[in-house]
Amino acid sequence: MSPVFWIAPGGAVLALGFALFLALRNLRQSEGSEPMKEVARAVKAGAVAYLKQQYKGVGIFMAVVFVLLLVMAFMKLQVIFVPFAFLTGAFFSGLAGFIGMSIGVRSSARTTWAAKRSLNSGLRVAFSAGMVMGLVVVGLGLVDLSAWYAILRAVYANLDTVERLEKITSTMIAFGIGASSQALFARVGGGIFTKAADVGADLVGKVEAGIPEDDPRNPAVIADNVGDNVGDIAGMGADLYESYVDSIVATMTLSVVALKFTGFEVNGVLLPMVLAGAGILAAIIASFFVRAGDKAEQRVLLRALRFGTYGASILVLVFAFFAVRWLLPNHTQVYWAIVSGLLAGVLIGYFTELYTSDTYKPVQRISAEAKTSPATVIIEGLSVGMTSTIPCVVVVAAAIITSYYLSGGGSNPGLGLYGIGIAAVGMLSTLGITLATDAYGPVADNAGGVAEMTHQESMVRERTDALDSLGNTTAATGKGFAIGSAALTALALVAAYRDEFRIVGQRMVDDGVLKQLPSLDLNLLNPRLMAGVFIGAMLPTGVAAMIMKAVGRAASKIVEEVRRQFREIKGIMDGTAKPDYANAVRICTLAAQKEMILPSLLALASPVVVGVLLGAEGVVGLLVGGLAAGFVMAIFMANAGGAWDNAKKFIEKGHFGGKGSEAHRAGVIGDTVGDPLKDAAGPSLNILLKLMSMVSIVFLGLVLRYSLFR
Amino acid sequence: MSPVFWIAPGGAVLALGFALFLALRNLRQSEGSEPMKEVARAVKAGAVAYLKQQYKGVGIFMAVVFVLLLVMAFMKLQVIFVPFAFLTGAFFSGLAGFIGMSIGVRSSARTTWAAKRSLNSGLRVAFSAGMVMGLVVVGLGLVDLSAWYAILRAVYANLDTVERLEKITSTMIAFGIGASSQALFARVGGGIFTKAADVGADLVGKVEAGIPEDDPRNPAVIADNVGDNVGDIAGMGADLYESYVDSIVATMTLSVVALKFTGFEVNGVLLPMVLAGAGILAAIIASFFVRAGDKAEQRVLLRALRFGTYGASILVLVFAFFAVRWLLPNHTQVYWAIVSGLLAGVLIGYFTELYTSDTYKPVQRISAEAKTSPATVIIEGLSVGMTSTIPCVVVVAAAIITSYYLSGGGSNPGLGLYGIGIAAVGMLSTLGITLATDAYGPVADNAGGVAEMTHQESMVRERTDALDSLGNTTAATGKGFAIGSAALTALALVAAYRDEFRIVGQRMVDDGVLKQLPSLDLNLLNPRLMAGVFIGAMLPTGVAAMIMKAVGRAASKIVEEVRRQFREIKGIMDGTAKPDYANAVRICTLAAQKEMILPSLLALASPVVVGVLLGAEGVVGLLVGGLAAGFVMAIFMANAGGAWDNAKKFIEKGHFGGKGSEAHRAGVIGDTVGDPLKDAAGPSLNILLKLMSMVSIVFLGLVLRYSLFR
Repeated sequence: MSPVFWIAPGGAVLALGFALFLALRNLRQSEGSEPMKEVARAVKAGAVAYLKQQYKGVGIFMAVVFVLLLVMAFMKLQVIFVPFAFLTGAFFSGLAGFIGMSIGVRSSARTTWAAKRSLNSGLRVAFSAGMVMGLVVVGLGLVDLSAWYAILRAVYANLDTVERLEKITSTMIAFGIGASSQALFARVGGGIFTKAADVGADLVGKVEAGIPEDDPRNPAVIADNVGDNVGDIAGMGADLYESYVDSIVATMTLSVVALKFTGFEVNGVLLPMVLAGAGILAAIIASFFVRAGDKAEQRVLLRALRFGTYGASILVLVFAFFAVRWLLPNHTQVYWAIVSGLLAGVLIGYFTELYTSDTYKPVQRISAEAKTSPATVIIEGLSVGMTSTIPCVVVVAAAIITSYYLSGGGSNPGLGLYGIGIAAVGMLSTLGITLATDAYGPVADNAGGVAEMTHQESMVRERTDALDSLGNTTAATGKGFAIGSAALTALALVAAYRDEFRIVGQRMVDDGVLKQLPSLDLNLLNPRLMAGVFIGAMLPTGVAAMIMKAVGRAASKIVEEVRRQFREIKGIMDGTAKPDYANAVRICTLAAQKEMILPSLLALASPVVVGVLLGAEGVVGLLVGGLAAGFVMAIFMANAGGAWDNAKKFIEKGHFGGKGSEAHRAGVIGDTVGDPLKDAAGPSLNILLKLMSMVSIVFLGLVLRYSLFR
Repeated sequence: MSPVFWIAPGGAVLALGFALFLALRNLRQSEGSEPMKEVARAVKAGAVAYLKQQYKGVGIFMAVVFVLLLVMAFMKLQVIFVPFAFLTGAFFSGLAGFIGMSIGVRSSARTTWAAKRSLNSGLRVAFSAGMVMGLVVVGLGLVDLSAWYAILRAVYANLDTVERLEKITSTMIAFGIGASSQALFARVGGGIFTKAADVGADLVGKVEAGIPEDDPRNPAVIADNVGDNVGDIAGMGADLYESYVDSIVATMTLSVVALKFTGFEVNGVLLPMVLAGAGILAAIIASFFVRAGDKAEQRVLLRALRFGTYGASILVLVFAFFAVRWLLPNHTQVYWAIVSGLLAGVLIGYFTELYTSDTYKPVQRISAEAKTSPATVIIEGLSVGMTSTIPCVVVVAAAIITSYYLSGGGSNPGLGLYGIGIAAVGMLSTLGITLATDAYGPVADNAGGVAEMTHQESMVRERTDALDSLGNTTAATGKGFAIGSAALTALALVAAYRDEFRIVGQRMVDDGVLKQLPSLDLNLLNPRLMAGVFIGAMLPTGVAAMIMKAVGRAASKIVEEVRRQFREIKGIMDGTAKPDYANAVRICTLAAQKEMILPSLLALASPVVVGVLLGAEGVVGLLVGGLAAGFVMAIFMANAGGAWDNAKKFIEKGHFGGKGSEAHRAGVIGDTVGDPLKDAAGPSLNILLKLMSMVSIVFLGLVLRYSLFR
């Protein structure tokens, strides 16, 4: 084993150790007064109840897929390691979500308490909770990958280098399916949960009963807070865990192809893991840059977080420069692909902010439309969201082209595709800290809720509000980052699909399952490929529609439950009786789990169904069409939703009539429309993109065996 | 010249003759009382004023493109006939729009007058006006094509058959650019005009001044009526003229490829034209089936129109059966592609109705959401529009696959692509009557306006309402048909692009412009192709966003003008003074012409810019990505808009509180959001799809010469 390899597990251990340190430091902080502890307990209980239920669902799903993969392995349609690797991937991803959320729910009251002392103290507690999530994701992800790499290396020790690496990577690429399945439940289920609770709490609480947001008399208030944690911490974490793992294994696979056919260096296979390990170090160092003074000004706070993320990016660029020189002395140009990946991530973040922050024109224009009518607010918001896709797509297209050609794809296509993969890895290498700036948001949000529910002095509420409002901005940027990295990762997976096709086909011929090596005609004018592109371009829209409906149905169940509690539990409104928070959480959980089935099935089944009906060419068309259209839809939904949200907040700051005005009502309508788009349907598309690619690769054997077109 | 050829010009003459007969018959009808004539005059004057302005804009644009094409011809980047053919295409398309609209605006008051007699009389006048538009489009389209075919055949008489046909078709395919440019102005400019006038009239008239719709005191009321004509008659006509001509020339081109490389029959090149000629006959015969009794029931009226369109489809199927046997005795299987094209058209129409008619669940569910809030109306409508893309895409994907494989693409790809083209021709062959059921709508709509403005007895208004409401349903189906045919046509154009690449490349090598034959790597994993797919998938969204903003800006100008007139012209409200209708029309026209520039430039420039930056592969990616995503977006926008419109009408029929209720207000907000989607942005995407393909083909020489990747 090359000593270089140890950078990966080393980084992983470092990440987990530092996460433990941060977690313990947070837990040593006081959770505050008894009422604060009580609220925290309720949210904790709700989150645990949700996760339990989710893991039950995941468990059943995993069992089914595990058996399916086992059967496939016995039919020689899949390698025997895959079912087990599937389990470890799912386990570690689930574990990361569990740890991240456990620390998250334990940190919000502590953030409130620390904010009593100073803004910086509050920031440090909340941000540390975010860092724990970020570090656990990258740490466990790398542990899983390194372990399997070592195991498979031992298993295939008797093969020559190239063949061994091919075996290792072509097995490892299928692992992503575990993380993907976990992400599906966390992101889709969590998204439906969080929006259903939010909408349900608002509709009855704010609109019907006339009580403020986060009011403890609202039976759905805890569910709403739980939702922030399950959707934005656990969901986002699982989403990026998947991107992280997938981009690394896809790039490893692509490196072997480059190695086999075009004389690439053997160490190319290690670079993604090394880069990931170096990224962890960068993230940890940069996390020390994040500190604020005591002026609750958003600009200052934002600069503090930016200092952390940009700092990490610069450090990674330095580490990567030496890593590439060291590992790939003959292909140092690959470095530029890493640069372009990191740059694309930063640029997408910038454009997301441009279209969703109220310091810029687009959001202010939406607010201005609120003077005319809710309809013009909607039209303007749709149009802002749609317009924002233009620069983001141009950035991704540019990243594809530059990472391909700068790393040498012009003369050596295999190297170019490797470049695209390594660009995705580069973009994700600083995940430890970028995820932290994102997962920090819900903690701050909940801290505000705790302050509200326990009637803290106004200074505390101001500070938590400053932290929360910052969280909204970083959440938008984080979403842009999640979408961008999902797109590049999915692209790398699609590129790897062709090689998997060759490898799996050859294996099946060797095993006697297929008579002859199947051929793959990826010419765009192949009608099956074209039909696949059409279906792929429709899937994101179709899935988004289903999820929007699911949120609506789940929300109406919460509405009924809240109404029932108001009706049946006497004394809620005057504070003499306590609402049954747990039951609201339970109903929300069950509804989310039930409602996620249909859209998930569509995402899971379509690559297999299309594969059987239209062959592997149809699948590639499906993936590319789905990837391009899904990226556009995801950006549109995230940014339209974010823009409406901040347009409403801009009005609430006193513009165009301020709170309670007709314009504010129009702004609220815009925000309500945007909610399921940005927090449920949009993020689910990230999962869709990667999951479809993963399913296509894992079930390739099935398609090759049973497709109508062979 | 094969005698078979004469079926095409023969059909064209028949169409024009029958159109003349119908037009004269309509004009012989009385236009009614003096007030009715006055309203009609105002609309007529407004429409002529608009068209004059539009043709001025078109004229300048045409002059520029003509010179550009001439320069390209002198630089040997294009054939010398193309600039001239460009002019005739633009001229005939413009002429068709002019005639259709002239008869349209002359028929609305006559429809009102005839409706005084009986419902059937009203239907016949309005439907005849629609038939004139339909027949003039197909007639002039075929005249243009036949004439050029005959001319080029004579010019290239000394070449052998295959070479001659290749020269003819590769020149003719560039003709579409004329029709495309005209359609761009008519559809995009017309779309912005009609929605700006509509929204402007409503916002000030209904909301601010509190006067009913179509009230003669509203200065924008005539502009609103003019808008129906320029958007839904001239615009829709130009859109389908383009599809009609493009699908025929694309299929002719594809037939020559099949002929050259795989021994297809020479008559394959004539089949599209013959089919078009036969379709005209079918449409004329079927038009006699359209008649109603005197019960103003929508179901009965709808059945009358369906009788016409389905009748024409069946007749075409019969004619096509014999035409294929006769022209292609060795390839009779091509017939099944025609069947699948026609069937796809019918199915898309069916699904459009399912999602936009208030007799079905989806629209009723949107109405039900109006009880909760405007936000849920919007969410449900978005989700209905998005869901409706699922069956429509499946139908198109199935049409691609079946027309390809059933016509023999499995063993002979050239024949398969020809099959896709002929499916588009089949779908469009009955255009004479399908366009009639669509263009009939605005005539009936305006007839209702005339009845309202001239205070006719309630019986008349009831009858025109019945006709109008039917028009809404057929408009939705018509839109589905327009989108579906645009998709298949664009697909045929993309397929033809590869052959044009070869032909143009060869010509440029022969002419010494290029040193060596360029190569085209259409492998989907080519990064330039992939980047093209991403950009293509974004363009429809980007263009739609621009057009939505354009409508908003243009509408605000109308709002200002209407307010100004109310303020400055004393006595409008009590009816003692007349508003300045013409000025409102003028302002609307100028705004529409100005606002269409930016989105049009994006559509026109992107294939050339992408071609220069990413090469021809990037262009193909752009076209396919744009086609798939654009189809999805167009369906989504048309159906969401149609569903909101009818959900509002469903409430107005007395459900969920009826007119004036809170639910109705929510429904109106949904309708207002949907308007620019369904009547401006959505339809523009049809043009985008075809125009991009056309521009790509026409400017191929430029790309081959100046691309960075050669």
